[in-house]
Amino acid sequence: MGERFEVAFEIRADSPAQAQARAEDITVEQTLEMSPALVADTITEAMAGRVQSLAPLQPGRHRAVVSFAVETTGGELTQFLNVLFGNISLKPGLRITDITWAPSLLKGFGGPGHGMPGLRAATGAGDRPLLCTALKPMGLSAGELAQRCEAFARGGIDIIKDDHGLADQPSAPFRERVERCQQAVTRANTATGGRSLYFPNVTSGPGELPARLAAAQEAGCRGVLLNAWVTGLATLSWIRERTGLMVMAHPALTGAYFGADHGITVDVLLGDLFRVAGADAVIYPNTGGRFGLSEQTCEALNHRLRRPLGALRPAAPVPAGGMDLDSIPHWARRYGPDTVFLVGGGLYTQGDLEAAARQFRDKATASYD
Amino acid sequence: MGERFEVAFEIRADSPAQAQARAEDITVEQTLEMSPALVADTITEAMAGRVQSLAPLQPGRHRAVVSFAVETTGGELTQFLNVLFGNISLKPGLRITDITWAPSLLKGFGGPGHGMPGLRAATGAGDRPLLCTALKPMGLSAGELAQRCEAFARGGIDIIKDDHGLADQPSAPFRERVERCQQAVTRANTATGGRSLYFPNVTSGPGELPARLAAAQEAGCRGVLLNAWVTGLATLSWIRERTGLMVMAHPALTGAYFGADHGITVDVLLGDLFRVAGADAVIYPNTGGRFGLSEQTCEALNHRLRRPLGALRPAAPVPAGGMDLDSIPHWARRYGPDTVFLVGGGLYTQGDLEAAARQFRDKATASYD
Repeated sequence: MGERFEVAFEIRADSPAQAQARAEDITVEQTLEMSPALVADTITEAMAGRVQSLAPLQPGRHRAVVSFAVETTGGELTQFLNVLFGNISLKPGLRITDITWAPSLLKGFGGPGHGMPGLRAATGAGDRPLLCTALKPMGLSAGELAQRCEAFARGGIDIIKDDHGLADQPSAPFRERVERCQQAVTRANTATGGRSLYFPNVTSGPGELPARLAAAQEAGCRGVLLNAWVTGLATLSWIRERTGLMVMAHPALTGAYFGADHGITVDVLLGDLFRVAGADAVIYPNTGGRFGLSEQTCEALNHRLRRPLGALRPAAPVPAGGMDLDSIPHWARRYGPDTVFLVGGGLYTQGDLEAAARQFRDKATASYD
Repeated sequence: MGERFEVAFEIRADSPAQAQARAEDITVEQTLEMSPALVADTITEAMAGRVQSLAPLQPGRHRAVVSFAVETTGGELTQFLNVLFGNISLKPGLRITDITWAPSLLKGFGGPGHGMPGLRAATGAGDRPLLCTALKPMGLSAGELAQRCEAFARGGIDIIKDDHGLADQPSAPFRERVERCQQAVTRANTATGGRSLYFPNVTSGPGELPARLAAAQEAGCRGVLLNAWVTGLATLSWIRERTGLMVMAHPALTGAYFGADHGITVDVLLGDLFRVAGADAVIYPNTGGRFGLSEQTCEALNHRLRRPLGALRPAAPVPAGGMDLDSIPHWARRYGPDTVFLVGGGLYTQGDLEAAARQFRDKATASYD
C-alpha cells in the first residue's frame, strides 16, 4: 500500500447524504476526473481519494476527511496543490481546514532552509523576539530608501525588508536599491556592532527572478522577500535549493482563499503550505490591525508554523499590518519569543526612524534581553 | 502625467461615506501602504491610487473606479497583480469587476503569442469550432495514454491535452508520456492527413519547468497545458517568450477568487488576466456542467477573451467541465466558431474513442464544415 495524506474539509450540504455525495465527488474530481465506472478497478483503487470519515458540524455544514495517495502528486508541490484544491476551488462551499501530511511529502518538499533558528542565529538575537520593518513608500529613490535602511539598522531592527510593493519601479530600480540598501545596513552594522539584515523583494516572473536573486547575493544580502502566491508557491523551494537564501514570504493575493465557507483556512494556507514549501518566515495581518483576522486564527497560524512536523524546521510567524508600538509588549507576551514582529507605519509616524526603531526594540525585548 | 489604468470594484459598505472611505483605503493600501500624511505630496501624487468615481449599486454595495499609475507596477505582471489585489485580497467585501488597461501594460505584457488565429492555423481548422479532449485518468501507463491519444487523433480531435492532473507520476513519467503521445498523434496524422496537436501538461516548479518545456519541444509538441495560477501567472509570458509554444491555460486554484462579494470576477480573472499574461486558450467550466457558472458569466468570459484589446491577439475560450456530446450543437451555435470545445468524460463513456471523437466532430462542426 502506498503512502497517503489526509485533507479535512468543511462541506456545505443540506443533508448527510448530500455531504457524503460531495465528499465522494472530491475523491474523483481531484484525481481520476472521470467516472470510476469507466476506469479499471486497480487504477481507481490506486488513484482515487477515499472518504475516511464524515460527521455533521452544524446545520448545513459537515466535516469530511479525504485521503489521497501520495502517488497522485508525483512528489511535486505544484501537483500537490492541484490535488488539494485545483478543480474543487471552483465548487462552492468546500473549505480545507487541516492537512495530515505524509512523511515522504514533508521530506520531499523540505520546508524552511533556515527557519526561526536560522533567523535567530543570523541576527544574533539570543532568545528574544525579532524585529522587522518595511522600507517604504514606493516613489522614494534608492538613496532615500537606503537612508531609511541605515537608520533602522542603527536603531536595532533585525530584519529590514522592502515593502512588498517595491519591485523594479523607475523611482528605485531593483539593482541600485539592493546595492545601496545593503551597503547602508553594512555601514550601520559596522558602526553599532549589530547584525541587521536587509531582505529585498525579489518577486518577479521566472525570466527575471534568477537575476534578482543573483543581484541580492552579490550585494551581500542573506535573505529576500517573496510574494509567494504571486510567483507560485514552488518558487519558495526553488529559491531554497538554488540559493540558500532565507526567504520571508508575504501573503499578497491569498486573502481570497479565506472565505467563511469556501477556500483554505488561514492557518493551513499560510501556516502549513507556506512552511512546507520553504518559507523561513511568514508575514500575516495580525488581529486588531487594519485587517480582520481573529486572535484565534493568528494563534492557530503561529502554531502551524512552529509545530513539530516531520523533520521540518519551525518557521517564524511575522505578525504585521498596522500594529502600533504601544501594543508590542502585549503581543510579545502573547505570541512568545519565537516571533518576528513587523512594524512599518508605526515607526514612520515617529519621525526619527532610528529613535523609533530603538523604542520598538525596547518594547519588544524588555522581558528577554 | 504618467499613464494610468483603472480598476472597477464592488465594495461592501453600509453607507456612501463608508464606501468612499473603503475606496480611499484601496488607493493607499495597494501603493504607499502608509499614511499619506507621512509621505511627500509629490510621491502621493505620483504613486497613490485615485478614486475616479463612486456610485451605489444596491443596498450595501457600491461601485468604485480606482485608477493607478502604471509606474506603480514597474511594468511587471507580478507587481501589477500585487497592485490589483495583493493586500486587499485580505480585506473582505471587495470584488474586482473590470479593468481598463493602459496601452503600455498591454504592450508590455503582450498577450497570446498565437491566440485563436494561431490555433486555427496550426490545426488547419478552417472556420469551424475546434475540438479538444483530455487524456486521462492518472494511473494509466504512458503507452496506454498514447493509445488513447492515437484514437482521438484518428477521430479528428484538434487538440488532445493531458488531463491537468497528469504531472510526473511514476505511472506515466512526463518525458516518456510526452514522447509516446506525440508519436501516437504523429502516426495518426500521417494515416489520416489530419493535423491534430498534443499538448502535454508542463505544470511544475521553476526548477523543473525548463526541462519539461524542452522535452515537449524535442518531442515535437507545438503547445502545452499549464495550470497557470499554480505556477504563477507570469509563467505564461515567460513560456511565450522563451519557447514560442502555444499555451492552453487551466483554471486550477482560481475558484476561490470567484466569491459573490469578494475576489475577482471570472471574466476578469480568466478572461483579461489570463489572456493579457499570454494564454492562447483558456479552459473554464461551462454552465450546465458539474460546476456552477451562469451562462451570462461564460458569455462575459468569452467576450473578454475575444474582444479588441490593444494589439493583443484574441484568445480561445475553452468551455469544458462535463458537457455531453448531445449538448455540443447547442453550445456551438451559442458560443460561435471561435471556440475550442473540450469534452473529456463525455467521450470516454462511448467506449470506442475514435468513433466518439468522430461523433464529437460531427456535432460541433455540422454547421461549419
